[in-house]
Amino acid sequence: MVFEITILGSSSATPTNNRHHTAQYLQIDDNYILIDCGEGTQSQLRRYDIKLNRIDHIFISHLHGDHYLGLVGLISSMHLNGRKDKLHIYGPVGLAEIITIQLKYSDTRLVYNIQFHEIETDKIYTILDNASITVETIPLNHRINCAGFLFKEKPKRRRIIKDKLPENFSLQNISKLKRGLDIVDEDGHLLYKNELYTLDPKKNRSYAYCSDTCYSDTVIERVHMVDILYHEATFLQDLKNRAIDTYHTTALEAGQIAQLAKVRKLIIGHFSSRYKDLTLLLNETKTAFENTELAIEGTKFIIEE
Amino acid sequence: MVFEITILGSSSATPTNNRHHTAQYLQIDDNYILIDCGEGTQSQLRRYDIKLNRIDHIFISHLHGDHYLGLVGLISSMHLNGRKDKLHIYGPVGLAEIITIQLKYSDTRLVYNIQFHEIETDKIYTILDNASITVETIPLNHRINCAGFLFKEKPKRRRIIKDKLPENFSLQNISKLKRGLDIVDEDGHLLYKNELYTLDPKKNRSYAYCSDTCYSDTVIERVHMVDILYHEATFLQDLKNRAIDTYHTTALEAGQIAQLAKVRKLIIGHFSSRYKDLTLLLNETKTAFENTELAIEGTKFIIEE
Repeated sequence: MVFEITILGSSSATPTNNRHHTAQYLQIDDNYILIDCGEGTQSQLRRYDIKLNRIDHIFISHLHGDHYLGLVGLISSMHLNGRKDKLHIYGPVGLAEIITIQLKYSDTRLVYNIQFHEIETDKIYTILDNASITVETIPLNHRINCAGFLFKEKPKRRRIIKDKLPENFSLQNISKLKRGLDIVDEDGHLLYKNELYTLDPKKNRSYAYCSDTCYSDTVIERVHMVDILYHEATFLQDLKNRAIDTYHTTALEAGQIAQLAKVRKLIIGHFSSRYKDLTLLLNETKTAFENTELAIEGTKFIIEE
Repeated sequence: MVFEITILGSSSATPTNNRHHTAQYLQIDDNYILIDCGEGTQSQLRRYDIKLNRIDHIFISHLHGDHYLGLVGLISSMHLNGRKDKLHIYGPVGLAEIITIQLKYSDTRLVYNIQFHEIETDKIYTILDNASITVETIPLNHRINCAGFLFKEKPKRRRIIKDKLPENFSLQNISKLKRGLDIVDEDGHLLYKNELYTLDPKKNRSYAYCSDTCYSDTVIERVHMVDILYHEATFLQDLKNRAIDTYHTTALEAGQIAQLAKVRKLIIGHFSSRYKDLTLLLNETKTAFENTELAIEGTKFIIEE
């Protein structure tokens, strides 16, 4: 089962000649997800050969332009491409209004349906729960309402050790073993002890996305032991005061958060356009948390099963 | 005096890997103008080394996303860059509402002022008249309210033949000669006959921008003898029916319009993303009007004095 994050953009506030605004594409099994959608995201999706109409869920963290201004263009291109499937869009209050008013003035009657899910950014709760994943909010501390997202695979079933089972073992019994049950006969006598015929389930992978926020203890609690944490690192520590004024995090702080939360890997992004050489940010973060990588456009991060 | 058009994008509807949505930068003397502002325009301006905060007037032809979705991002970047000067934005009803609602939800209090000028797209009138230029509307025939723009230099003054004038010739008299007056003494006797000391003024250059429209006689009348006509040419003539359905023009029709209007040069653009090889469109247009060029990103068109 696939669990793969593709970075589409990682520039904060103003884009640079080689860095687009924030957007990420996340595939978990057959869930095709876009997280934030800065200006130019539809072009970035094309550049990395990601089919626009495959995306079924879009999560917008907050209504600063660098995180959502590509959304109306993407919605329009999906329309022109003849999309049929419903599109689910999750975002703070105001997002539906902003999109609806623009569709009204362009006289666009979409050939597919959008379902808006207004999220409460200051609350911890599950906003999506389907057969294979859950998505929960991570309240962030930014200048305006802003939420991060915690993507988690659902608990998986035990794995059958095929070689140990007799041929013609019934599907019903296989299902029981996968669910952790022993197989007994009509009189309740044990026939197959589960632990002899199955292995533990594969682990439930997790990805936490924290777009724009200052250093927050809530984040540290919410992202405890995730496989990958994406956390913004807009400034170097020498601009700590600027980070405070603008409700952002420094590269050092992002590393400290990852270290305290005991995550497996950290990706930093949302770089200020002032930094031409991003290794300055990377090196600062690594002083607190070694297993860190930069959110460079086009990079894929895979979480193995 | 400069009169220069820079193409920033020329793709219709959906962008391609090498063509951005419609936007053009126009400098006439000390007027710095943006015409339409598709998604990604702020990045295109940076790519071609055009200072964002130099732009003082923005003209938006209509509210299809491929012509205005870059506007909020550009406005925000001007704000972050510390713009001071007022920005004038001209566009159809709805544009001010769309921008205002997005500034509200992002809690952005701009450090400069925007003055919105709502234009009536079905009316021929002057929407800007300053010391050096006028801008008039060109009603276009599109699916929604849409206007083109006719940029014209104001009539210039006569040119002094310096060598023919005595030294210490007064500034007052030079001004009179430039305005076409003879110089007479107190008794009304002719001292300097204007035509002997001046040359005719330089011509008043003009540029007509017709973004999205089907073939229109009004356009032909309005753009009569302009120096450069930009006209959309979304499809080849073999897709004439598709052009009619979508209120667009074919490459052949664009050439016919230029020929009938007796313009000096034609630029075609707003190419459908289906065309990889734009010379097909260019060649078709040239069968009707030879002096045609493609609106390729980064190309500068200069109208000489």
